[in-house]
Amino acid sequence: MSILIVGTVAFDAIETPFGKTDKIVGGAATYISLAASFFSNKLRLVSVVGDDFPKDSIQMLKDHKVDTSGLQIKEGEKTFFWSGKYHNDMNSRDTVDTQLNVLENFDPILPEDFKDSEFLMLGNLVPSVQQKVLDQMTKRPKLIVLDTMNFWMDNCMSDLKTALKNIDVLTINDEEARQLSEEYSLVKAAKIIQKMGPKYLVIKKGEHGALLFGEEKMFFAPALPLENVFDPTGAGDSFAGGFIGHLQKTGDITFENLKSAVIYGSVMASFCVEKFGTERLSELTNNEVSSRLEEFVKLSSFKI
Amino acid sequence: MSILIVGTVAFDAIETPFGKTDKIVGGAATYISLAASFFSNKLRLVSVVGDDFPKDSIQMLKDHKVDTSGLQIKEGEKTFFWSGKYHNDMNSRDTVDTQLNVLENFDPILPEDFKDSEFLMLGNLVPSVQQKVLDQMTKRPKLIVLDTMNFWMDNCMSDLKTALKNIDVLTINDEEARQLSEEYSLVKAAKIIQKMGPKYLVIKKGEHGALLFGEEKMFFAPALPLENVFDPTGAGDSFAGGFIGHLQKTGDITFENLKSAVIYGSVMASFCVEKFGTERLSELTNNEVSSRLEEFVKLSSFKI
Repeated sequence: MSILIVGTVAFDAIETPFGKTDKIVGGAATYISLAASFFSNKLRLVSVVGDDFPKDSIQMLKDHKVDTSGLQIKEGEKTFFWSGKYHNDMNSRDTVDTQLNVLENFDPILPEDFKDSEFLMLGNLVPSVQQKVLDQMTKRPKLIVLDTMNFWMDNCMSDLKTALKNIDVLTINDEEARQLSEEYSLVKAAKIIQKMGPKYLVIKKGEHGALLFGEEKMFFAPALPLENVFDPTGAGDSFAGGFIGHLQKTGDITFENLKSAVIYGSVMASFCVEKFGTERLSELTNNEVSSRLEEFVKLSSFKI
Repeated sequence: MSILIVGTVAFDAIETPFGKTDKIVGGAATYISLAASFFSNKLRLVSVVGDDFPKDSIQMLKDHKVDTSGLQIKEGEKTFFWSGKYHNDMNSRDTVDTQLNVLENFDPILPEDFKDSEFLMLGNLVPSVQQKVLDQMTKRPKLIVLDTMNFWMDNCMSDLKTALKNIDVLTINDEEARQLSEEYSLVKAAKIIQKMGPKYLVIKKGEHGALLFGEEKMFFAPALPLENVFDPTGAGDSFAGGFIGHLQKTGDITFENLKSAVIYGSVMASFCVEKFGTERLSELTNNEVSSRLEEFVKLSSFKI
C-alpha cells in the first residue's frame, strides 16, 4: 500500500524569537513526506517547484524513500516562497511575504502509477486543486485526508465544501473549526463539520494537543510540553505525515487505530518544532521516534 | 484523615453569553467543599461571611458533610461580593464589581480540633492570610495545596513567595505560571516554580486540560470537550476539591496517585461549568461522577 502526498514544496524565510532564517526548504508536502517516511517507504509526491529549487533537497526527499516522479520542475520559473514572523507566544504569526510563483498555475498531474494509491494526503492547497487530484484517482482510496486553512474558508468556501464531500478525514485547527462550522463549542463544531462530508475530524490545537472526533466518539491527545519551541512552521504538516504514515503502515483505519495515529502525528510534530524548518525531521532517527513515543505514553497514562 | 479547606464563601453575580444571575452563592471554599464532598466526609471549613448570608446555604454545606464550625458569621456585616462578565470565548472575563466586605479584615481562626488536619487546601486568598493558617497548624499536614491568582502576584509577591516555601502543591493557570516564573515555556516555568517551594505544580489550562509537574515527571490531563460551557466560575476550585478529595480518600500522595487526582479534579470541573454557580455540583450524584470518570478514561486512553 502507498501514500500519495499532494501539497506545496516551497522556500520559507522564518523569524521567531529564537532567530531568523534565510530562504530554507519548506512546504506542506515536504514536511508531510519527511514525517511519513518514518512509517512508510511507499510515498508518492505530487507538487511543483521552479528551476531554482535545489537538487540536493529533491535528493533528500528521495533519500527518505519519496517517489518524486510527480514533482514538476518548471524551467525558468520560481518556487513558491513564504516568509513569516512568529510572535513571542509562538501561537500566532504574521505573513511577511507570499510569492506564489509556480503555484499560481499549479496543475497537479498524477503519474499513471500514482492513481491507485490507497492513502491520499491532500496537503493545504487551493481547494479546487485538491479536488483536481481527487478527480484523477482511478480507484477510491481507502482513506483520504485533507488539510486546509482559514484563507480558503475566507476565499473559496464553496470549492472547499465540494472537496469536503469527498474525503474521510479533515485536519484543521480550533479557530478554523469554529470558522467552518460557525460554532464556538468544538463538540458542536465537530458535529456540523462531519455533516459536511468527513467521517472524522482532527482538530489541532498546537501546544494544547489535538482532538479526534468520529463515530460519535472523541479522543484527546496531548502535545508534549517542550522546553523550547524554536519554530512551529510545519508542525501541522508533520502531524499529518505521522498520522497518515501510521495508518498506511498498519492498514487499519478503525477509530482505535486513528487514535494511535493522532499520537504518532503528535510525536512527529513535537520533533518538527525543535529546530528551524525541516532540520530536525531530516536528521531524525527511528530510535528517537520510539523513545519520544514512550514519553507520550508516560505523559498521558493514568490508572483509576 | 480530614481535609481543612480555607477560602472565600461569597456572593457572586455572573453574566455569560448564556445568561445572567442575580446574587448567588459562590466563593472558592464553597466550590472546593462541594467538589471534595464526593470523596471525603471529613471536611472542615474555615471562612467568613456576613449576617446576610443565607442559612440554607450553610445548611447545604452541612448536608455535604462539611464541618462549618470554622465559618465565622459577622453580625452587622456583609458577605464578600464579586460580580463578573465573561467574554464570548468564556476564557476571559471582566470583573464588574468587587466588594470585600467581611473579607477585608478576615482573620482565619482555626478551631482547636481543625489544627491537626492531615490535608490542607488553601483556596485563593490574600497570601498573608494563607500563611496565618499555616502558622496555626499544630502538626505539619501530610499534604498542603495552595491556590492563588495573578492579582496576588501583582500586589503581594513577597508574601506569596513566603507562603510558597511551606506548601507541597501549587495550583495556578498557565498565564499565572508564566507570570510567577517569568518564563514562557511551561516546562521551564515549572522548574523555576518548584524551586520556590512546591514539590508539585498543577497548571490548569481550562478547556485545554491540566498539566502536573513533579519528581522530574510530567502528566497531561485532558479537559472534557463539552457542548455547552454555561459558566466557568468555580471550575478551578471544583478541580482543587476533586483533586484533594481523591488524595485524602486514598491517603496516597505518590506521583502516580496525584495523576489520578488531577483526573478527578478535571471530572469535578467538567460538571461545575455545566450550570450557573454551584447549581450543578449541589445536585450531582455519585453515579454521575463515576460515569463521567469513564468518559475521561475513554477520552484519553490509547493503545500503541
